[in-house]
Amino acid sequence: MTELSLIECVPNVSEGRDASRIDALVHAVSAVPGTLILHRTSDPDHNRTVITFAGSPAALLEAAVCLAAKAAELIDMNHQQGVHPRLGALDVLPFVPLEGASLDQCLDLAHRAGERIWREIGVPVYFYEAAALRRDRARLENVRRGGFEGLRAAVLRDESKRPDVGGPALHPTAGAVIVGARKILIAYNINLRSKDLDVAKSIAKRIRASGGGFPSVKALGLPLPSRGLVQVSINVTDFEQTPLHVVCLEVWRLAAEQGVEIEEGELIGLMPRKALEMAAAGLLKLSDFDSQRIIENRLETLVNL
Amino acid sequence: MTELSLIECVPNVSEGRDASRIDALVHAVSAVPGTLILHRTSDPDHNRTVITFAGSPAALLEAAVCLAAKAAELIDMNHQQGVHPRLGALDVLPFVPLEGASLDQCLDLAHRAGERIWREIGVPVYFYEAAALRRDRARLENVRRGGFEGLRAAVLRDESKRPDVGGPALHPTAGAVIVGARKILIAYNINLRSKDLDVAKSIAKRIRASGGGFPSVKALGLPLPSRGLVQVSINVTDFEQTPLHVVCLEVWRLAAEQGVEIEEGELIGLMPRKALEMAAAGLLKLSDFDSQRIIENRLETLVNL
Repeated sequence: MTELSLIECVPNVSEGRDASRIDALVHAVSAVPGTLILHRTSDPDHNRTVITFAGSPAALLEAAVCLAAKAAELIDMNHQQGVHPRLGALDVLPFVPLEGASLDQCLDLAHRAGERIWREIGVPVYFYEAAALRRDRARLENVRRGGFEGLRAAVLRDESKRPDVGGPALHPTAGAVIVGARKILIAYNINLRSKDLDVAKSIAKRIRASGGGFPSVKALGLPLPSRGLVQVSINVTDFEQTPLHVVCLEVWRLAAEQGVEIEEGELIGLMPRKALEMAAAGLLKLSDFDSQRIIENRLETLVNL
Repeated sequence: MTELSLIECVPNVSEGRDASRIDALVHAVSAVPGTLILHRTSDPDHNRTVITFAGSPAALLEAAVCLAAKAAELIDMNHQQGVHPRLGALDVLPFVPLEGASLDQCLDLAHRAGERIWREIGVPVYFYEAAALRRDRARLENVRRGGFEGLRAAVLRDESKRPDVGGPALHPTAGAVIVGARKILIAYNINLRSKDLDVAKSIAKRIRASGGGFPSVKALGLPLPSRGLVQVSINVTDFEQTPLHVVCLEVWRLAAEQGVEIEEGELIGLMPRKALEMAAAGLLKLSDFDSQRIIENRLETLVNL
């Protein structure tokens, strides 16, 4: 493990309902030699699948382009519906450094992937986070504002909305891909035993950084019609700044204030070990905790000395 | 790591104040070739030090006997005071199987250590948990009931109270050692912003198994005079039966009911990774969590395939 320099890629594709299409999309990645599928998760209400995979830079680049092609082939955004914001068939394509890799390597990969997606598939590309070419495109939600329907119209009349690579029009069925390089984030949802979307929206607004809530927290209130619930959908972009237990306990408190119970939590994809350790240590109020207080870590350290 | 068969030993000695004595006690263990000190923690109010160490069976046995000798040399129970129950200078000596080791191996070590402690040092021994020779001695709190002062008198008049090895009288200054074999436990304390011992005692009573609380939970309410606080001192003997977040959240709730705030938590010694994962996943209400949702674990698994 420690000798490897691995990068993770966490594409979000706009299909979360049709199992055979989802399998085909995952296969587009796994068929590329050198890729390791770490996780996949689909949500029918979001109508979205998140694939987590790792590999060498060359394998990641190839797999990302193959996935963009397969998504453009299978998904028509004119007929795609779901509660999650989205701009394209392959909607978001972030590259994330794991241990031994740098954000610069990911930025380079993102730019190379974006160029190839436009050149080889004809789908235009926006760059976000560390890969952003324009300051106002650093934040994903700013790039995606308006979604497929809104941006398809906007790019034709407003030069400032045009893609970074390709276009200016969006692809007629596949929209555009938002490609980025970013640090690891945690995608975590809390489903509420309520059908009142306003409850989820009000909680999301209270906890997110843009509403004066916790730093490094993004949140949306979304309906989950197939389950008869509403959801606070959360991204924690820096779990060292705002550990998960803080977000979690505050959502519980705000839900209780409105008399709403928690149905369950959902982790989308994977989380780093340190995020879990920080959440547990925070809950247990262990001010002097470090990972060496875990037996397995301590033994590994001593045995490797 | 996975090739090793390690046993952990977690002696509790009745000295938690005098730094030079504590160092001498720890040194009695670390001076034995083949031992690895994993952690040490001392509490002045408990007047107790918990040492966590690992090693080969032969090294553990030797170190346990050396520690018993050093504790008998340095600690006089006639003058030892502290808020934690105790019977001897080396009070408790549990052997715990880590990955690759069995409880039977630990039981065997416990019996061999007990025999040597009596034969070589002259301190009598009680066996508890998996090493108990009598059913009524399985539970540590039953063996230790009465403490040094109570049992010193009781053994003289009541045959049923006598040590399993040696005696029948306790050692005049070192008392007796309670030697055991047990599964891993988590020693975790929650300190309350109150000087009212009844608050800590009432919470301890509500959460412990013997009071109708959580299975596998032992708890005591103790004063912490040096800090002006009271403490709910907790042992979770099976964290898969009662995960830590359950205990933690219930103590918060019971304290809040009495208008008392939580000062901090304290982990004594170490905890297994799985206990931490279960606490975090429980807090996050992730019903489908398994350790493969942690990036590092997933990568290790795939890379080792």
